Amino acid sequence: MRAAHAEHGQIVIKEVAEPTPEPGQLLVAVKAAGLNAADRLIIKGSYVVGSSTRRAETQPPSIPLGAEASGEVVAVGEGVIGFAVGDHVMGVSGSAFAPYALISAALAMPVPEHLSFVEGAAFPVTFTTAHDALLSAGRMRKGANVLVTAAPSGVGIAALQLARSLGAGIVGASSRSAAKLGALADAGLPVDIGIVADDPGFVDTALAATHDHGFDIVIDNVGGPALPTYVAVAALRGRIVSVGRMGGEEGTFNLDELARKQLSLVGVSFRTRPVQEIVEVYRRAGEDIVPALAAGHLKVVVDRTFPFEEILAAQDWMQAGRQIGKVVLTFE
Amino acid sequence: MRAAHAEHGQIVIKEVAEPTPEPGQLLVAVKAAGLNAADRLIIKGSYVVGSSTRRAETQPPSIPLGAEASGEVVAVGEGVIGFAVGDHVMGVSGSAFAPYALISAALAMPVPEHLSFVEGAAFPVTFTTAHDALLSAGRMRKGANVLVTAAPSGVGIAALQLARSLGAGIVGASSRSAAKLGALADAGLPVDIGIVADDPGFVDTALAATHDHGFDIVIDNVGGPALPTYVAVAALRGRIVSVGRMGGEEGTFNLDELARKQLSLVGVSFRTRPVQEIVEVYRRAGEDIVPALAAGHLKVVVDRTFPFEEILAAQDWMQAGRQIGKVVLTFE
Repeated sequence: MRAAHAEHGQIVIKEVAEPTPEPGQLLVAVKAAGLNAADRLIIKGSYVVGSSTRRAETQPPSIPLGAEASGEVVAVGEGVIGFAVGDHVMGVSGSAFAPYALISAALAMPVPEHLSFVEGAAFPVTFTTAHDALLSAGRMRKGANVLVTAAPSGVGIAALQLARSLGAGIVGASSRSAAKLGALADAGLPVDIGIVADDPGFVDTALAATHDHGFDIVIDNVGGPALPTYVAVAALRGRIVSVGRMGGEEGTFNLDELARKQLSLVGVSFRTRPVQEIVEVYRRAGEDIVPALAAGHLKVVVDRTFPFEEILAAQDWMQAGRQIGKVVLTFE
Repeated sequence: MRAAHAEHGQIVIKEVAEPTPEPGQLLVAVKAAGLNAADRLIIKGSYVVGSSTRRAETQPPSIPLGAEASGEVVAVGEGVIGFAVGDHVMGVSGSAFAPYALISAALAMPVPEHLSFVEGAAFPVTFTTAHDALLSAGRMRKGANVLVTAAPSGVGIAALQLARSLGAGIVGASSRSAAKLGALADAGLPVDIGIVADDPGFVDTALAATHDHGFDIVIDNVGGPALPTYVAVAALRGRIVSVGRMGGEEGTFNLDELARKQLSLVGVSFRTRPVQEIVEVYRRAGEDIVPALAAGHLKVVVDRTFPFEEILAAQDWMQAGRQIGKVVLTFE
């Protein structure tokens, strides 16, 4: 079969053998696969998986791509309970950009009736990442004010909805684009206050909207240059959770202000987590997310689809940064 | 009486009325009072107390100085239980640089038999700050590796000892001065590995000493410029607790590395805490610290004393940064 890999800083489509499921795995005929910001980091060689305190200097010369897929189960490995051939599933995978992919049964969910395969492929990474960021790293409690930065991103849209469904107080959204913020509101997403990223009144607007309390949790997809702004709008004892670094990796800010406000800046990533822990994150997220999804309370926002063979165009589209929601590859 | 205040960015000694205790307060004839890094920030006008999300722009034109004292109780306010006139006490105060100071009974401890007044005045802030940093902000558990930066500082010396007495794994100490690190070891303080701050092999030394695990907690008194180093030596899921910013307030570091390692950078300060919470911090710290102190397990390291009237020379000595342990003012 033809699968997308990262080699020498580029995407290549190469001929590889069809995989066979190990114990606990599903072999899925992929119908759709979601793109993620991490794909680009893998291609650049800067997203190296492994539980090491030191950053690894090198990665293998060829790495399969594709973090999530939806499709039809065509074979199940030993010991799999709860899934059978023919089931429609969605889940995370290490090699989803291919016609056949392996998904661990522990990381798979049935595609709900009302979701298409394309929507299913846009769901697992964003909602699980957002849930983990809000609850594990952000230690969210009911009533907490939550600001989501780069809110029109896949993770951003998931975070807005989960924040509201988990009982947030004021839900804020920021974006470089006023038009995108308008589109989020038009789509019925829960945005109590939208703030344009380069608005010089950002801090005043955010504090006024929260009655000078500030945001207890900032789910940050932007990173570096905006950090001082997020420190300024955070509530006392707030948590700024670094989920993505779309705006840059280098952060500069005033540590004394972090201390004065007793803030925590918390980094999250799945790269350095053991598999068993990722399974646990999915299990916990699933308890909150799956019922809400089944009840139709969560919207999956897909910006655009590309046929698998046009993966380079899909990546370019992601890089251009004009999308609202997820970019998804489709398979025959 | 003559008391030290901060006015117009300077220390002035001015005539003020002797205070009278409010309900719950002790009036103490001060025998000794400890200097702290925060004194300097108050003088500069950048340490403004108050529970506000926004940083206050101004502070009162005249602020009493002195964060901790030891002395003899000369009067007690209404409702005080457990202290009587004539008791020798130590504790935090907002106006300790004066012959008479008020100390809240909830923030006072008896001076143990084997401690002098000078040692008693060097105890409350450092040990309580270190305890809070290790346990509340650092969420320390037994076996955690702990690195203390600017280890020869008052808080540093307290943190080294509390880390060990709370069951730390490997206890590391860093300092700009190899001689000071040697002096810590000579004084019998628990330092498993000492690292000179500008050693180009800092990261390798720290990781080798922890068998490549890194430090689960960094109690950081240095701040800004050294932050990337502390990120590099932190263990996966580690906590870097910003207690002091002796080296600078502006921090620049790689957010992606923070995320990859799932680190938390946690700021702590007493400035923005309500009094009731500070009382609770003292109560919790007291449970661990007082028995250890009474049993002689904790050393109070005093670098040098100055008579109260030489407070300017004492401040200059603090600023020069050559001390090991606390600088203390003495009163007739």
